[in-house]
Amino acid sequence: MILAIDVGNTRIKASVFEVDTVLDSFVFLKTELAENIQNILKSYKKIAHLVVSSVSDVEKNSFSEFESFVKIHFVSHNDSFPFTNQYKTPHTLGVDRMVLAAGAVLQFPNQNRLVIDAGTCVTYDFIDESDGYQGGAISAGLQLRYNALHNFTAKLPLLEVENPEHFIGKSTSESMHSGVVNGLVYEIDGFIDEYKALYPNFIIILTGGDAVFLAKRLKNTIFANSNFLLESLNQIFQYKVKND
Amino acid sequence: MILAIDVGNTRIKASVFEVDTVLDSFVFLKTELAENIQNILKSYKKIAHLVVSSVSDVEKNSFSEFESFVKIHFVSHNDSFPFTNQYKTPHTLGVDRMVLAAGAVLQFPNQNRLVIDAGTCVTYDFIDESDGYQGGAISAGLQLRYNALHNFTAKLPLLEVENPEHFIGKSTSESMHSGVVNGLVYEIDGFIDEYKALYPNFIIILTGGDAVFLAKRLKNTIFANSNFLLESLNQIFQYKVKND
Repeated sequence: MILAIDVGNTRIKASVFEVDTVLDSFVFLKTELAENIQNILKSYKKIAHLVVSSVSDVEKNSFSEFESFVKIHFVSHNDSFPFTNQYKTPHTLGVDRMVLAAGAVLQFPNQNRLVIDAGTCVTYDFIDESDGYQGGAISAGLQLRYNALHNFTAKLPLLEVENPEHFIGKSTSESMHSGVVNGLVYEIDGFIDEYKALYPNFIIILTGGDAVFLAKRLKNTIFANSNFLLESLNQIFQYKVKND
Repeated sequence: MILAIDVGNTRIKASVFEVDTVLDSFVFLKTELAENIQNILKSYKKIAHLVVSSVSDVEKNSFSEFESFVKIHFVSHNDSFPFTNQYKTPHTLGVDRMVLAAGAVLQFPNQNRLVIDAGTCVTYDFIDESDGYQGGAISAGLQLRYNALHNFTAKLPLLEVENPEHFIGKSTSESMHSGVVNGLVYEIDGFIDEYKALYPNFIIILTGGDAVFLAKRLKNTIFANSNFLLESLNQIFQYKVKND
């Protein structure tokens, strides 16, 4: 049994896996890391491995107290991945993006794959049908756009993500919801259209905290799975066990 | 002769108009307001009116020292505009957006008009062919998106707007340029496509600091004019003189 842990920019997500089955899932704040891991390990005593992906400043020593109970594996650039990395600066490629790419390759073999992770940021990662990781794009996620509109202007309020009631906003908040939500939907559809024009035989995987919210608004057909990063961590672990 | 002044979220832009002709244009920081206006008034002694649009916290009294030399007109919600305002909360509609809408109506009569102002924020304003201002959308501008990626994440650098060399970014900075620039281009084309599907007989006006940078990347045909807000201020003044 393994515990996959995704340390993102704002939150930590974790899932307990028994081979390919998710037994339980958790979301908590970084400040509550220790007590949450402790509780999970108490509830699932058969957990033997922690597999951790981190894009943020949570240090490895936050996990050191668990080292006597479980084996801890921090996914890093030095691990073996099931793709060839064609990034110019492979050591600056976020570990989370490498995990997503690996998951896409393992779960959807022999096709062109675009993984879109819509969380704090929106990352686009393209792995071609020869399993070459080519790179992608990074843009601001939904809540980041609302934050930016408030923090960097004099008069706009701080809003939370909301379904735009009208395409044409008829108040400040309606205008912001239309601009942010429709804007990101058009962006994602635009990227997908461009990739599709460049490459045939394509699968698009949409994941991250805003995957479900965005999926129903896109005109393109996508495979939406908000748990894809954690599932990929689980698959990387199995891949590692098989190949070590 | 009038001096049109656009106080934005980050900068102040000003143009000297002799009827419909721009004689000179200026861009400066808010902190340099007084000395710049002073210099302009010294250079163009025939300026009799200041017409000011402000979205920001620059107070009217920043201009009070000029009151003895020129007539100062702050465009406000109480002015008469050449459109009917169908906004639900007309008093929260930014004066800058009202000025742009007025300019669109005066310069492009009897058609559906979408004004896109790509500055600190990107605002979309739609005025139908019956001169009804219907509302629109607000999203984050190019630099704001870069700022947000840096300020609200742990590891992304602060970048300035740059032409993305490759569609598929092969480094962190290439990925960010592709995500931010292509993302906003897809957003704008997406909004235009949706408006065009809803309304025929359409003109799209693109203005703001990023208008020229963005215009050549859009698939839609647009009228790009980075000086449209100042020209609109000049036209509103003439409209006011005619109608008062």
